[in-house]
Amino acid sequence: MNLDPDRLRSAVEWRDGHLEVIDQTVLPHELRVLELTGVAEVVDALRRLVVRGAPAIGVCGAFGVVVGLAEHEPLDLAEARRRLDELAATLEAARPTAVNLRWAVRRVAAAARAGADPAAMRRLALAEALRVLEEDRDACRRMGEAGRAALAGRDRLLTHCNTGRLATSGTGTALAVVYAKAAAGEPVRVWATETRPLLQGARLTAWELVNADIPVTLVADGAAGAVLAQGRADAVLVGCDRVARNGDTANKVGTYTLAVLARANGVPFYVVGPLSSFDPDAADGHAIQIEERAATEVRELAGTRVAPDQAEVWNPAFDVTPADLITAFITDAGLLRPPFTTSIAAALATAAAPPALT
Amino acid sequence: MNLDPDRLRSAVEWRDGHLEVIDQTVLPHELRVLELTGVAEVVDALRRLVVRGAPAIGVCGAFGVVVGLAEHEPLDLAEARRRLDELAATLEAARPTAVNLRWAVRRVAAAARAGADPAAMRRLALAEALRVLEEDRDACRRMGEAGRAALAGRDRLLTHCNTGRLATSGTGTALAVVYAKAAAGEPVRVWATETRPLLQGARLTAWELVNADIPVTLVADGAAGAVLAQGRADAVLVGCDRVARNGDTANKVGTYTLAVLARANGVPFYVVGPLSSFDPDAADGHAIQIEERAATEVRELAGTRVAPDQAEVWNPAFDVTPADLITAFITDAGLLRPPFTTSIAAALATAAAPPALT
Repeated sequence: MNLDPDRLRSAVEWRDGHLEVIDQTVLPHELRVLELTGVAEVVDALRRLVVRGAPAIGVCGAFGVVVGLAEHEPLDLAEARRRLDELAATLEAARPTAVNLRWAVRRVAAAARAGADPAAMRRLALAEALRVLEEDRDACRRMGEAGRAALAGRDRLLTHCNTGRLATSGTGTALAVVYAKAAAGEPVRVWATETRPLLQGARLTAWELVNADIPVTLVADGAAGAVLAQGRADAVLVGCDRVARNGDTANKVGTYTLAVLARANGVPFYVVGPLSSFDPDAADGHAIQIEERAATEVRELAGTRVAPDQAEVWNPAFDVTPADLITAFITDAGLLRPPFTTSIAAALATAAAPPALT
Repeated sequence: MNLDPDRLRSAVEWRDGHLEVIDQTVLPHELRVLELTGVAEVVDALRRLVVRGAPAIGVCGAFGVVVGLAEHEPLDLAEARRRLDELAATLEAARPTAVNLRWAVRRVAAAARAGADPAAMRRLALAEALRVLEEDRDACRRMGEAGRAALAGRDRLLTHCNTGRLATSGTGTALAVVYAKAAAGEPVRVWATETRPLLQGARLTAWELVNADIPVTLVADGAAGAVLAQGRADAVLVGCDRVARNGDTANKVGTYTLAVLARANGVPFYVVGPLSSFDPDAADGHAIQIEERAATEVRELAGTRVAPDQAEVWNPAFDVTPADLITAFITDAGLLRPPFTTSIAAALATAAAPPALT
């Protein structure tokens, strides 16, 4: 099978001096690439989930600083710094749960602030954003290899939401493990939950795995229990939007349910994510803000109203999986095992210190 | 609030000599009542889920025998009996999982077979079908009262799929408990899972509870875990399509997941259903045939394709909840507690013996 290289793009790329993103709201019907040229466009893309997935959100935010600094010129140094502070705050506020956004924006802003003039600030921002992107790609490769080693002999993997090329600027987090197995010639097949309300599993995960010629079977979210109870999956792999110091993990709503089901059926449950998704400021899951999104996401499907207006809706975008349901974290710094308070602290201490999160 | 009596109809009614059903495929957009005048129409209505919900399927099948016998006349007695056998077999095969269909069809067919001539057969079939309907309504009332007693002080109830007026010819199974609480002036509010793929929770449960002025909050299936983990529900109530002798319960896919989540969070999990949903021929869950439905139900939403064609789909309509996850059964014969093998056998022995299921 010849794979179409355009269908193997990642969510966020920097090409010829432009920030290019795949518009994930129109997949799988259309592969539409958008160029984002200003902060307002970047914020809109993040809010509307044109770009989603914690690592991709971070990379997109990093380049948001770059395009934001280029938007209004010429500026003097004081103006440029004021502008930098404003746009960094605006970008950070676009999505509240994924810690990668704040981390990446602050990192690029801190690099830019060292510039002696506006042009130097722009150059330094671009250099740092490119480093963020390259590190994200490298982190995907490392997670893939760490997961491949940890999951030797476990071929049938159940996953949730989308954690692949469309969630990162590389091959993904949980799906990086799938791609690494496939690249090594090992057997691998994926159970993908459709992931209501926004159907990232159906629209994105199934699409990108089909494009990569990896077998994928889609199920309604409610059918994951039957998959696990009938012994049809060897492990559950999910991504993460924010991991607290004790290992409590915020991820797409429905993740906690899969963790409980995995435990009940003796199936290992792995969280895959780069250290940039670990939040040293959050002691445990209670410290993680959970974004609640619009009722229309649940009341409507593909633009069609499916529930009466008068019914209330509760639509949390994420849930928190307690650390004790997690077998291990697969990270760009290798496998982190319980007790997580110790292993996470050790991994964060040896990683390059991130900019202070005040 | 004035309640619109037409919006408080049940799924299947016999009015002025006609079999009338609500077309549940077009809810909540339109309240369309269809008259079914022949076996082919009844089978089509069952297959396309115009009528769904185990008790409603049973009542619809019962009247299917009546309209089937009226379709071709005049017949001699031998022809009428041959016709009866054929149409009973055709009706029974329309849906494989709900035991109520087989039970009700065989019961009405057995009554009709005693007729001395075709006209007597039709009269006897009608009388028996009306008894099935009246017993179903009465069973709903009994389940409602038994559940109200069992759930005193538990006001916030999480439910799955649709188990109300649209699932029976009365007030429902699990939702009968909700209606009984409301009718008694007790506080009650419902968490409804949307229930992919066919969205019975969003389209039907939310619609009928709004019509009855009972507060309902809709969530994506994946958000039920967060509802339970955050202590937002006092009990889980579900219906059942078939209960085995040991208490293993087949119900809408996703039910097993709620049972596991309820257990993990110390929330009681009740299965509500009439004794006609209990299958004395099934020793345990392994004996229950699970219907698998078309991939398009998952690949499409409200007629819009949401996943690539090349992705495989697994679409079991039901799953099996092991008996040990069930707190108690709320039935028309009262509350059945563990050990279920004993309590179910006792309840079935005291109930009117159903016709032999050969």
